[in-house]
Amino acid sequence: MFRLQVDSSLDLVLLETRHAGMLYALVDQNRAHLREYLPWVDATRSIADSQTWIQGALEQFARSQSLNVGLWTHGALAGVAGYHTVDWPNRRTSLGYWLAESHQGRGLMTRAVRALSDHALVSLGINRIEVRAAMDNRRSRAVAERLGYQFEGTCRQAEWLYDHFVDHAIYAMLRSDWRDNTAR
Amino acid sequence: MFRLQVDSSLDLVLLETRHAGMLYALVDQNRAHLREYLPWVDATRSIADSQTWIQGALEQFARSQSLNVGLWTHGALAGVAGYHTVDWPNRRTSLGYWLAESHQGRGLMTRAVRALSDHALVSLGINRIEVRAAMDNRRSRAVAERLGYQFEGTCRQAEWLYDHFVDHAIYAMLRSDWRDNTAR
Amino acid sequence: MFRLQVDSSLDLVLLETRHAGMLYALVDQNRAHLREYLPWVDATRSIADSQTWIQGALEQFARSQSLNVGLWTHGALAGVAGYHTVDWPNRRTSLGYWLAESHQGRGLMTRAVRALSDHALVSLGINRIEVRAAMDNRRSRAVAERLGYQFEGTCRQAEWLYDHFVDHAIYAMLRSDWRDNTAR
Amino acid sequence: MFRLQVDSSLDLVLLETRHAGMLYALVDQNRAHLREYLPWVDATRSIADSQTWIQGALEQFARSQSLNVGLWTHGALAGVAGYHTVDWPNRRTSLGYWLAESHQGRGLMTRAVRALSDHALVSLGINRIEVRAAMDNRRSRAVAERLGYQFEGTCRQAEWLYDHFVDHAIYAMLRSDWRDNTAR
Amino acid sequence: MFRLQVDSSLDLVLLETRHAGMLYALVDQNRAHLREYLPWVDATRSIADSQTWIQGALEQFARSQSLNVGLWTHGALAGVAGYHTVDWPNRRTSLGYWLAESHQGRGLMTRAVRALSDHALVSLGINRIEVRAAMDNRRSRAVAERLGYQFEGTCRQAEWLYDHFVDHAIYAMLRSDWRDNTAR
Amino acid sequence: MFRLQVDSSLDLVLLETRHAGMLYALVDQNRAHLREYLPWVDATRSIADSQTWIQGALEQFARSQSLNVGLWTHGALAGVAGYHTVDWPNRRTSLGYWLAESHQGRGLMTRAVRALSDHALVSLGINRIEVRAAMDNRRSRAVAERLGYQFEGTCRQAEWLYDHFVDHAIYAMLRSDWRDNTAR
Repeated sequence: MFRLQVDSSLDLVLLETRHAGMLYALVDQNRAHLREYLPWVDATRSIADSQTWIQGALEQFARSQSLNVGLWTHGALAGVAGYHTVDWPNRRTSLGYWLAESHQGRGLMTRAVRALSDHALVSLGINRIEVRAAMDNRRSRAVAERLGYQFEGTCRQAEWLYDHFVDHAIYAMLRSDWRDNTAR
Repeated sequence: MFRLQVDSSLDLVLLETRHAGMLYALVDQNRAHLREYLPWVDATRSIADSQTWIQGALEQFARSQSLNVGLWTHGALAGVAGYHTVDWPNRRTSLGYWLAESHQGRGLMTRAVRALSDHALVSLGINRIEVRAAMDNRRSRAVAERLGYQFEGTCRQAEWLYDHFVDHAIYAMLRSDWRDNTAR
Repeated sequence: MFRLQVDSSLDLVLLETRHAGMLYALVDQNRAHLREYLPWVDATRSIADSQTWIQGALEQFARSQSLNVGLWTHGALAGVAGYHTVDWPNRRTSLGYWLAESHQGRGLMTRAVRALSDHALVSLGINRIEVRAAMDNRRSRAVAERLGYQFEGTCRQAEWLYDHFVDHAIYAMLRSDWRDNTAR
Repeated sequence: MFRLQVDSSLDLVLLETRHAGMLYALVDQNRAHLREYLPWVDATRSIADSQTWIQGALEQFARSQSLNVGLWTHGALAGVAGYHTVDWPNRRTSLGYWLAESHQGRGLMTRAVRALSDHALVSLGINRIEVRAAMDNRRSRAVAERLGYQFEGTCRQAEWLYDHFVDHAIYAMLRSDWRDNTAR
Repeated sequence: MFRLQVDSSLDLVLLETRHAGMLYALVDQNRAHLREYLPWVDATRSIADSQTWIQGALEQFARSQSLNVGLWTHGALAGVAGYHTVDWPNRRTSLGYWLAESHQGRGLMTRAVRALSDHALVSLGINRIEVRAAMDNRRSRAVAERLGYQFEGTCRQAEWLYDHFVDHAIYAMLRSDWRDNTAR
Repeated sequence: MFRLQVDSSLDLVLLETRHAGMLYALVDQNRAHLREYLPWVDATRSIADSQTWIQGALEQFARSQSLNVGLWTHGALAGVAGYHTVDWPNRRTSLGYWLAESHQGRGLMTRAVRALSDHALVSLGINRIEVRAAMDNRRSRAVAERLGYQFEGTCRQAEWLYDHFVDHAIYAMLRSDWRDNTAR
C-alpha cells in the first residue's frame, strides 16, 4: 500500500506481513543464487518465516531502528534493500540488499541504493552508511562503488557462510561525501 | 517517505516518528476545534506525546492490528485517518478520522475514507467497517453517509468527553454493500 | 470458596482455577447447545483450556478489568456470567452470559444478570452496560428485555460464528435508567 | 462482593482493589499496634500502597499461589489473614494474619484461621501449613496453639524488624493432624 | 575461568553455561546416589537442562540473589554448593550442597561450606545462614554440625521426595556465632 | 570473589555489583583521562550507574554474550577489559579495555588482553576478535599491535565523541594467527 516512487520503473514498497507470500516465493525461486552470499536462506523454509521477518522489521521501523523495502518493478517484487540497526548516538547505519537473479543487469539495485542513501543522509540526518560485501561478491561491491562509496578495508573471516568463513570488504559513504557527489 | 497517492491533491502518508513535530503542531493549532469531539486532545501536551502515539500505531501496524495515515495535501499535513484494532476472527474493524479546521470543506476526508474503505474491504479482506460518531457531529456523520455507510443505531452515553457523556451514532459498511456501491 | 448469595437457590461464585474440571464438564455436556451462539466452544477441548480461561479472567479481575462468576444452584454449576473488559475512562462495560440447557426456564440467568447489573451500576459506579446478542437468540435477548435493557440498534454481520456471520442486537442499561427502574 | 461466611459474626471477604481505602484506613489507625511485629507498616504510606498490595495478592490468587482475605465483622473490616506463596510440589504453605487492636479478644482470628486451615488442608489438598510468629508475640502464638498447631523449633534472628532482629517460633499443622483433631 | 582457591586441592569455580556438559555428566553418573535426597534429579534429563539451570543461577548472581559454585579438585568437578535466594531485608540466606559419591570422605564439602559461610557472613554482610537437611541425611547434617551450625528444630513433612514426605532438620549459623567460632 | 590469576601482579576479577563503589571511584578519579576516548564517561554520574552497568554485564555473561573483568593489581582495581556482544553464529567478538592513568606504562593491559584473547580463541572457540581504537589513540593501538593483532582498515567518522567524530582503526586476531603466534 505504501511506496516511494524512484522512477517510472522502480518503486520502493514498505513490506507488510501480507506480502509474506510474495517474498517467500521470490526467495524460494532464488535459493541457489541467494545462498552464495546470504546466511539466512536455508533457515527460510516457509511463508511463516518470511512473515516473522517482515513483522520484526516493521517493529524495528516503528522504533526508527531499521527500514526495509521491497523493490517493485512493473508489478513484480524483484528484491529487498534496507538499513539494518541504526546507531543513533553515532548517527550511522549499515545497508544491505539482494536482487532476484532474473532482475539483475538493469541497474535496479543501484537506483534503489541511491534513493535509500539519499533518504538516510539527507532526510534522516545519518552521517555514515556502511556497506559490507563478501570480497568476491563482485555485483554487490559494484553497486557500492558505482555510487561512490569508499573502500575502507577488509575484515578477514568476518562471516560464517554455511561451511566456510568469508572476508568482508567494507565500504562507507559519509554525509559530506554525498553532498560533494551530488554537487558535482 | 511512504505514501499512497489518492489523487493529484491527496496522499495518504504512513506516519513515522520523525513526523511527530508536524503532527503535534497540527493538533496544537486545532485544539478548540478537535476538543469538541475527540477525548485525547488535552492529554496531548508535547511532541513526545505525538511521537509515542505514532510509535504505538506503527507497532500495531507491524502486527496487522491497525493502520494510521496522515492526509497530505499540497505539501501539508491536513489530518489523520485510520483503522483502530482489527478484529481478524470476525474480519471487522472500526475507522476514525479528524481534519484540521482550515482544510475542511473540500472533500479531503471523504476521499481519504473512500480509499481506506476500499483498501480494507477489497485488499485486506475485511468484512465490516464501523464508523462511530457523536450524534451531533454533523461533519463526521456526513463523511460516512456520503460514502454509503448505513446507520445502524444509537449507543446512548457511550463516551465521556471531558465533562459530559455523548451518544454515538453507529454506521457500518459491509463488504457486500461496497461491491454493490462500486458496481453502480 | 467465595460467593455472593443472590437468593436461596442462586449463588454467584468467583471461578478459581480449581473449578476448571467442573466448568469443562459443563461445556462438554452442552456443546451442541452452546455452539449455536458462542464462538469459543470448539476451541475448548480440555480441562487445561478451561483452566487457562479462568486464570486469565482472574488476572483481569485483579486489575479491575473484568468479572466472571459461575451460577451455582443447589450445589451444581449451571452457567457463567460476567463483565468483559471494563472501559473505565468512559465508565462502561459489556455483559455476557450462558446457561446449561437443563437449567433453562427457571429465571436463573435473569436473577444473575440483575445482581451483576446492580453491582456494576450501584457499587462499581459503571454508567453504561451493554448486552450484545445474536438477532435470533431469543432467550438471550429476553433476559436483557426482562430487566429493562433498552434496544439501541442492530450491528449487521458483527460476528463470525464457525461458518456464517450473525447480526448483533445491541441493548444497554444506563445508570440513570437503573435508578428509575429500581425506584418503581 | 465475594465472601465465605464463617459464622453469624464473621465473613472472610476476598479483598478487591476497590477495598484499598478501607484497608489503608485500618492500617493507618493501627500503626503503633501493627508495627510491633509487622515489617511492612512504615512502607504503607497511602491508599495506593494498599491498592498495589491487593492487586499483587489477587494476581497470585489467579495463579493459585496465595490467598488473602479480609475479616469482616458486623459490617466492618477487622483484619487480614492469608496463605503466602503455596509450594505445590511439596504441598505446603505458610499462613499469616493480623487484627486491628479494637477487635482483639473475641476469638475472631482463631475462627478465621480455623476456616482457612480447613479450606487449605481439606479442599485444596495442602499437606503442611506453617505459622511463623515472633517468639514474644504472645497473641499470635496463642492462635496457632489454640488450633492445635505443633511447635517445631525456633529460628534465631530470622527477621529484621525496623531496628532489631527477632527470633521466629515455627508452628505447623499437617493434614493428618487436622483429620485427627477434627475427628475428636 | 573464574575461581576462588580454598586450598591446594579445592577450588570453588563459578559455573558458566559452557560447563553444562561436565555438570550433566556428574549428575548422570550419580543418579541413584543423588536421588536419595535431591528432588530435581529425575527432571534433569539432558545437558540442556543443566545449561538452563546454570544460566538461571548466573542471572540470579547478576542480581546478587544467589551464588552457585562447582567444587573442583585435581582437575575434576566433584559437586556443587551455593546460597539460594538471598533475603536482603532480613540479611539471611540458606545454603545447599551435593557431592559425587566417589568424592565423599575427604572433607571436600566441609571446606567448601566453610569458605562459602565465611564469604557470606564476613564479606557480604549476611547475618543468618540456614542449612536444611533431611532428618536421616547423616552426611549432610554432619557437614553443618562440624562447622558449628546450631540445630534449631524439625520441620515435619517439609518436602515431597518422589514418593514420600521427608522431615527437615534446620541448622543455622549467625554472624555473631561465626565471629566467636573464628576467634577460638 | 572469583578471579583468574594472570601472573603474580595481575588478577582478572569478575566484577560483581558489590564492586560498584570501587569501579565508580576509579572512573571518577580518571574522568579527564578516560573522556579522551570513551563516550560513556559523562553519563556515569553515581555508584548506581556503575552498579547498573555491572548487573547488565553479568546478565549478558549469564547468556554467554559478553565477559567483563576488572584488572586487579597489588590489591587495587586498575581498569576494565572485556568482550562485547559475542556473535556466536559467526564465532566472533570485539574486545575493549581502559586503564587508570596511574597504572599505565607497566604492561598491565597487554597482559590482560593476551589472557582474554587466549581464553576466547582457545577455550571458547571464538574465531575472530576485533579491536577498534580511535586512530590517534596511540596507547590503545599499541596494545593490539604488541599482541600481533593485524590492522585491517580505517572506518571514517565511526564514532561521535561528545563534540566530534573520530575515525576507527580496525585490528583483528584470527584463531589461526593466534596458534601460529603461540607456536613461535
